[in-house]
Amino acid sequence: MQVKLKQKPIFIVLDGIDGCGSTTHSKMLKGCLESEGLKVCLTKEPTDSEIGKLLRVYLKNKEIPPTTDALLFAADRDLHYHSEIKKKLDEGCIVISDRYIESSIIYQSVSSTDISVNWVKLINKFAGKPDITIILDIDPRISLKRKIDLDLEKFEEMSFLKKVRTLYINRAKEEGYHLINSDEIIELVQENIQRIVNDRLK
Amino acid sequence: MQVKLKQKPIFIVLDGIDGCGSTTHSKMLKGCLESEGLKVCLTKEPTDSEIGKLLRVYLKNKEIPPTTDALLFAADRDLHYHSEIKKKLDEGCIVISDRYIESSIIYQSVSSTDISVNWVKLINKFAGKPDITIILDIDPRISLKRKIDLDLEKFEEMSFLKKVRTLYINRAKEEGYHLINSDEIIELVQENIQRIVNDRLK
Repeated sequence: MQVKLKQKPIFIVLDGIDGCGSTTHSKMLKGCLESEGLKVCLTKEPTDSEIGKLLRVYLKNKEIPPTTDALLFAADRDLHYHSEIKKKLDEGCIVISDRYIESSIIYQSVSSTDISVNWVKLINKFAGKPDITIILDIDPRISLKRKIDLDLEKFEEMSFLKKVRTLYINRAKEEGYHLINSDEIIELVQENIQRIVNDRLK
Repeated sequence: MQVKLKQKPIFIVLDGIDGCGSTTHSKMLKGCLESEGLKVCLTKEPTDSEIGKLLRVYLKNKEIPPTTDALLFAADRDLHYHSEIKKKLDEGCIVISDRYIESSIIYQSVSSTDISVNWVKLINKFAGKPDITIILDIDPRISLKRKIDLDLEKFEEMSFLKKVRTLYINRAKEEGYHLINSDEIIELVQENIQRIVNDRLK
């Protein structure tokens, strides 16, 4: 007998290296929860705010220092959390964010030896923490094939992505995040995600 | 006999509450140093970058959290320092910035009880430190009269500016900054600024 899921204001994040499938799986998860009659807000980072738009331009510009990128990501997230995520949680919604603070911690600290994990945590200290963080793990050789867009951002080089992947795995262990193999067929990956989320909504 | 001033790559900041005269005095100082045959770069914050333009819009919007403002100011400064100030200093120029890190430390920590002086210092840790910081001190009742623009930003209220002034004075004492009375006639204030700068260029 299937247990009915309850509406609870929980904040779920799907994160991982480029091409890990976080966008696809966030959308699928939203659809699944809505089909159970639950209110869900799907959001993403970088956001569509003016800061998020600027970030997308800067990510293609190698002249912008990684420290500036890190601060802009933190500003975008701060506004995202206070103007959108917190409000939706206060209304009782389930919030799913496609990427959040771990993307910053990992990408920025790998992109520059000056930037420590701890500094990225500090600049993000006013953005609320997720209730569930799920890291989708995938081999960069597979994930890059998924990207059709050849206009790669500065982050999307193989050796860089390998370091990023290692740090995601280490951070997941340290922080007790859920780590899911995203090389599998899409339905199986989504099933694993739903099992984790459903456990919190029973 | 007047001593000839030497070209040295020094980074000078003029700062203080709104209407303290930092813009006027930065321009006058530039003119004076150039008349001595020195190469000078005058700059300001918020800058004219895309981040600076966005900040000017957000400063008029009370919906934007002070923590987002603080991170955007830090991002604008980080880019300002690495893409402009440092390059000009490396070329041997004297750089004068109309406002810099103290504006952030003071305005943001006064604008929210959540924001500490220490956090603002931390988010700005990659922006290089000035060689000379001069705080222009003025009574907010006088400084506000200098502002013709009636479209005041969220920072420009009397009780707020009084707290800001107190913190500027305390920070100047703590950090050993030069504190100059800016209530005086303009030529006298400028003379005091030039005396401080000239001492470093002999």
